[in-house]
Amino acid sequence: MVGAPSQVPSCALCGAPVERVLWRDAQLRVVAIDDADYPGYCRVIWQQHVREMCELLPAQSLHLWRVLGVVETGLRDILQPDKINLASLGNVVAHLHWHLIPRWFDDRCFPNPIWGLPRAGAEAPSQAAQLLRRENAERLYATLPQLLNAQSPW
Amino acid sequence: MVGAPSQVPSCALCGAPVERVLWRDAQLRVVAIDDADYPGYCRVIWQQHVREMCELLPAQSLHLWRVLGVVETGLRDILQPDKINLASLGNVVAHLHWHLIPRWFDDRCFPNPIWGLPRAGAEAPSQAAQLLRRENAERLYATLPQLLNAQSPW
Repeated sequence: MVGAPSQVPSCALCGAPVERVLWRDAQLRVVAIDDADYPGYCRVIWQQHVREMCELLPAQSLHLWRVLGVVETGLRDILQPDKINLASLGNVVAHLHWHLIPRWFDDRCFPNPIWGLPRAGAEAPSQAAQLLRRENAERLYATLPQLLNAQSPW
Repeated sequence: MVGAPSQVPSCALCGAPVERVLWRDAQLRVVAIDDADYPGYCRVIWQQHVREMCELLPAQSLHLWRVLGVVETGLRDILQPDKINLASLGNVVAHLHWHLIPRWFDDRCFPNPIWGLPRAGAEAPSQAAQLLRRENAERLYATLPQLLNAQSPW
């Protein structure tokens, strides 16, 4: 990442957005996304205003990869969703960020991406399922700092 | 990745799908996706039937990450799209694969993900733009093997 501006005033992710930050370091932050359809949804946001993954230096890219892996593993182990979706799009806000989204067969849009059409005739998950997912999401959020502070396996 | 079945007969990506394979090794393959709206669209498919990224061993994950980075860099340098989208979803085919999609401000769905709604009243890119993108996609496909065979910077 050479010559990238560190902050862009007009960028929604560069400013001081209201976020539930779970963990941060000098390079990135992990935030919880408040989305009732996808409890446990996390976003990993690069601190500097970088457009594409391939603009990162190798060491930066590896660091981000490690963090994505830790969050994804936490999602899998604690929420046990039917699938996990990872995506870096940035078409609306071209500031490098990753979506990590737990998916369930009975969630709002499955099997479409969460940005796609809802399931036809979709019924919401049971209240018990929704409650369990929200509780597990809170467990994930409470556990992530410890997981991210642990020694990297790489 | 421990105890994962290497091949699942019913899986569309495990069999011998008709694909335009640009590069492969024992662990993964890079294929060109024939999509007139997104010339240059590539998919990176793990050879074994693995569901989630976090099931890979660290060395496997790093290899995949490196390959994603090389393809993404090639997309950026040769196609010069307005944005690049990376995604690993697998809701329909739960066999680990990554989408690498060049995006343009005037493409079919921008700024929505390609799985979202088309732009309202969208006009197609000019014929000249479409031709240039297709030509550049072919240049990318011809160049990727060389890029992927080159020494890793990591």
